[in-house]
Amino acid sequence: MNPLSSPLLTDLYQLTMIQAYVEKGLNARASFEFFARSLPEQRSFLVACGLESCIQFLECMRFTDSELDYLSRSGRFSPATIRYLGDLRFSGDVYAMPEGSICFADEPLIRIEAPIGEAQLVETRLINLIQYQTLVASKAARCVLAADGRATLIDFGLRRAHGAEAGLLAARASYIAGFIGTSTVLADALFGIPIFGTMAHSFIQAHDSEQDAFIDFCLANPNNTTLLIDTYDTLAGARTVVEVSRTLASQGIRVQRVRLDSGDFLALSREVRQILDRGGCQDIQIFVSGNMDEFSIRDLLDAGAPVDGFGVGTKLITSADAPYLECAYKLTEYAGRARMKTSTGKVSLPGRKQIFRAHHEGRMAGDTITLMDDPHGAHPLLVPVMIGGKRLAPPRTLADIARATQDQLAALPVELRRLEPPSAPYPVRVSAALESLRQATAHALAGVS
Amino acid sequence: MNPLSSPLLTDLYQLTMIQAYVEKGLNARASFEFFARSLPEQRSFLVACGLESCIQFLECMRFTDSELDYLSRSGRFSPATIRYLGDLRFSGDVYAMPEGSICFADEPLIRIEAPIGEAQLVETRLINLIQYQTLVASKAARCVLAADGRATLIDFGLRRAHGAEAGLLAARASYIAGFIGTSTVLADALFGIPIFGTMAHSFIQAHDSEQDAFIDFCLANPNNTTLLIDTYDTLAGARTVVEVSRTLASQGIRVQRVRLDSGDFLALSREVRQILDRGGCQDIQIFVSGNMDEFSIRDLLDAGAPVDGFGVGTKLITSADAPYLECAYKLTEYAGRARMKTSTGKVSLPGRKQIFRAHHEGRMAGDTITLMDDPHGAHPLLVPVMIGGKRLAPPRTLADIARATQDQLAALPVELRRLEPPSAPYPVRVSAALESLRQATAHALAGVS
Repeated sequence: MNPLSSPLLTDLYQLTMIQAYVEKGLNARASFEFFARSLPEQRSFLVACGLESCIQFLECMRFTDSELDYLSRSGRFSPATIRYLGDLRFSGDVYAMPEGSICFADEPLIRIEAPIGEAQLVETRLINLIQYQTLVASKAARCVLAADGRATLIDFGLRRAHGAEAGLLAARASYIAGFIGTSTVLADALFGIPIFGTMAHSFIQAHDSEQDAFIDFCLANPNNTTLLIDTYDTLAGARTVVEVSRTLASQGIRVQRVRLDSGDFLALSREVRQILDRGGCQDIQIFVSGNMDEFSIRDLLDAGAPVDGFGVGTKLITSADAPYLECAYKLTEYAGRARMKTSTGKVSLPGRKQIFRAHHEGRMAGDTITLMDDPHGAHPLLVPVMIGGKRLAPPRTLADIARATQDQLAALPVELRRLEPPSAPYPVRVSAALESLRQATAHALAGVS
Repeated sequence: MNPLSSPLLTDLYQLTMIQAYVEKGLNARASFEFFARSLPEQRSFLVACGLESCIQFLECMRFTDSELDYLSRSGRFSPATIRYLGDLRFSGDVYAMPEGSICFADEPLIRIEAPIGEAQLVETRLINLIQYQTLVASKAARCVLAADGRATLIDFGLRRAHGAEAGLLAARASYIAGFIGTSTVLADALFGIPIFGTMAHSFIQAHDSEQDAFIDFCLANPNNTTLLIDTYDTLAGARTVVEVSRTLASQGIRVQRVRLDSGDFLALSREVRQILDRGGCQDIQIFVSGNMDEFSIRDLLDAGAPVDGFGVGTKLITSADAPYLECAYKLTEYAGRARMKTSTGKVSLPGRKQIFRAHHEGRMAGDTITLMDDPHGAHPLLVPVMIGGKRLAPPRTLADIARATQDQLAALPVELRRLEPPSAPYPVRVSAALESLRQATAHALAGVS
């Protein structure tokens, strides 16, 4: 049972509900939509991410014999339910925003249309996949906006990620958002994402001197020569780099970068730059890591810190200031009839929805959430990606998604490109057609309860 | 390449450092220790968790042919490095605190002693495994202290976990800390953790009435009958439960619980309790979910809310108020000589360490961090768990770990059992022997740099 693909990586209630549907013979077509109920305080937009992993999950979803055997032995499920689960393949349709799309509260990122058992079963894993990747892509996009082309960004977060899958998916999500790469080797092996990394403090500590460590490292990795200079004293480390770079130059090896990982980065980067420049090392770049986020990146660059690149780790990979989305995967239609929830504070919009985005002078100018059959423009944001359980197109390349994401970020209203909250949220309106369906559905429900 | 076990789920710098060690022939024994540099503001102690998954990772760690092939093709690594990696198995010793141990800043949770290449390579995944599980166990322990035996707790977080592995490991970490189970089916299938769950709002919405939904569900799942009553109107839902419970009683089915998932839980739980009691349903329990954490659990129970159990999801599984630990895996000894770092704000303690804990009248009364060969009491907290790459004992049962954790929580000083920060932190002192090694090492380094 592989946690990354097992349909048992789900909430028990999905299976107990299926048992009730099976016993009662309820299996009409249902539409479920995933959306954020609200944006985290610290986000003025989201970058949709995770669709490709959802498609792969849906394409391959099946219960193995050992999984069915486990369910049988649990004593919770009838033979009919076990048979239903054994035969279950995803046969539905999926509409979704392409990865890299900018989106807002209440806007569905993905809709699943399938017999209710299938559409229900996949809820847990779809939320698990989309929420996290969207969180990271959104946080990474803020870092990219903060750097604003002045420095390159690399994901350094794997060790502080919540488990293996988070680390791997975050490398992809941040690359899509505009990072140039990651430290995670497996992200290259599996996704072809550029990887970066040279040495830790332990490498310096294991040598008798910093100088020995630098030279040993460069001789062994002549094409990948970023030297970590803060193990003992950053400025002494920079002076050592100047000496070492001369020794190495005679052997045809060029020191590419120094890395600072602690201390006052503004002061240190300036002093290190000066030491390097005076030592004839103008072409050695300065790379900074250690507790970085979009604010420290912006503030350092705005203050003129001569930093060429940043490693962004913990705060990116945990989306530390917003580690979760208020989000839901809600039934919006069943057996051809719109459905909604009226729980306090959690009212949902009924019906199969579509979103249209207006543009003005190349920038986004407002979204309309409406129903699928009620066009409000030429370019709907939700597009079909699976029909009858089959994907409609091969996976997009990461380069393609990353390019599209940059176009989206470039079209953000100026206020949304800032790190601070905008004076007014981006306008997202509900169409007249959707509003009247909402009222009609609420009215019908008032009769029911 | 399985992300959960692949040694490529690591930072590139581990491999470039190994290349330098291989080229230079450096492979002496190194000791690395993992510890928290400081506790998050919202935590006055941590519960160590994740050791078992680390042992399993170390036992099985090897590069597959396809992984070695990937590394060769990358062009980054010499044939000697590839050979070294191909032969690499973990051959070292591991000392660690047993899972469920209470611990504090600066105290090593685990020490790896092995040839430096091995000890270095495993850094990323060990931090990735221990940090997250310790975060969740620590957060879960706070929820358990808040409930204080007055209500049971269940992990409901999978959907908002950062990926699949986080969801699965969090079910285990919260169970160890005193939760009675989880909603995650795979946690039962793989770990034998009790699972819970019945229905979502969609189940109610897919039926023509709440009453039909309740009856259908109970007929299909007669031994697992928690009814979700807030889809439309919680009090109307409770009245429907009273009616339905009579119908079902005649068929020998007992309604066990109702679940509230939105609204003012204090007011609603009281009114629902009253409706149930007046309707002769005194034995139906009330279960609450929705945005719970240790504070809302404590406050509801302190106010006398008649709640029998809580589902705790998002804020537990993301450790939302402290989604990461300031932690490190640091070289403390190499080739028999103590090592330390003197980077600004990141000075580390040198040498192979041990921790002793004093008790007074059954409660913890202060810890001493010292060196391995400097006993300060009878019961060292770090114990050997692997020697020469082999585990010393079979995995402990979860029940055993959970019991030991409850003993540890019971021994916490009274102030540390509260949710608010204690007036003074728990006393952790550095022994004279460790302090003089620190000074001697710093002195020697001052000569080097």
